Amino acid sequence: MPKQVDHVERREFIAQALWTIVDRQGWAAATMREVAREAGVSLGQLQHYFSSRSEMLTFAIEFAADRTAERVARSTAALAQPPHPRDVLRAVLAELLPLRPDARATSRMNAAYVLEAMHNPALHQQVAVGLRDGRAMVEHLIRQAMDHGQIPPGRDAMIETDLILALTGFGPLLELGVIEPRAALAAIDQHLDRLFIPASGRN
Amino acid sequence: MPKQVDHVERREFIAQALWTIVDRQGWAAATMREVAREAGVSLGQLQHYFSSRSEMLTFAIEFAADRTAERVARSTAALAQPPHPRDVLRAVLAELLPLRPDARATSRMNAAYVLEAMHNPALHQQVAVGLRDGRAMVEHLIRQAMDHGQIPPGRDAMIETDLILALTGFGPLLELGVIEPRAALAAIDQHLDRLFIPASGRN
Repeated sequence: MPKQVDHVERREFIAQALWTIVDRQGWAAATMREVAREAGVSLGQLQHYFSSRSEMLTFAIEFAADRTAERVARSTAALAQPPHPRDVLRAVLAELLPLRPDARATSRMNAAYVLEAMHNPALHQQVAVGLRDGRAMVEHLIRQAMDHGQIPPGRDAMIETDLILALTGFGPLLELGVIEPRAALAAIDQHLDRLFIPASGRN
Repeated sequence: MPKQVDHVERREFIAQALWTIVDRQGWAAATMREVAREAGVSLGQLQHYFSSRSEMLTFAIEFAADRTAERVARSTAALAQPPHPRDVLRAVLAELLPLRPDARATSRMNAAYVLEAMHNPALHQQVAVGLRDGRAMVEHLIRQAMDHGQIPPGRDAMIETDLILALTGFGPLLELGVIEPRAALAAIDQHLDRLFIPASGRN
């Protein structure tokens, strides 16, 4: 295996060890020492891949965001092509929320770093850029759907965008068992049904 | 001052020192030692008021929830009486979200303990009970408004309740500056306008 690929794979393996700790014990427990222990490497070996905890966290966040983007891409690729924007938004929300075990680890990772970002200027910048990109992506979908007559023309694209983003608020309610996955999906469907003009016969 | 009152006040003073640390450095930094330092007492004096970190956190959470409930009660008392349920829901959401500095500290405290609760069974129970109470309160308001013809009869009370709860998802987006307070309030107003039947002439 080429050395460069091996280096990337080792970093991803370490990021996964970090997630396991965050999922089980929370963000604060994910020290360099604990991550090395979980990954089964020495602290010196870990420092070969990440020179600081901050560098390790940044990489793990980007890796988590990439995994989420891949799950979203797989979900939207599985839709009838070209996909209806309502189905795209539903697929994105379903992948961002902890509705299934594979989404739960990254959802919890997301919640942890959003919180951590409130106290850490470097992370703050990284997280805010990611969220603004997400907001711009949803806004683009909404405006496109308005142009195509799939959303009533009187709607305010920014307000509709922000109401879609707010639905990620189901995350902690799902995590804590206050709302069941079925109820969250029913609410998301209801919201999307009110946003989009019903199209008879679309698959 | 009676001894009992003084004891309660000292505990509240310590809880406020704990919030200051959570707001500035995050939850993990709020150790007994750090809280004692922030409150200007010795570790031994702190242990006179709280025998463990867990007891201190539980008290601080309840105190934060009480402060939020008081802010909500003040907001709803300031409405035209009897208040319209739309105005009550708006007031509750406005107090739960970090729209103003005084709501920001408790909102951040809430975010921190919701996250901590995912890894801490005792906190999990406490937080989930609080959130279920909140959900039941919103559901009660929605059902009452449906009974009074203020919400169209065809709506599903549980789905409408959960869509209101989802609006708390603006919290992290506001904290990280991704959405401005004005945009969050505009989206909340739009959502409530679609939920309630317009009543001309209500004040």
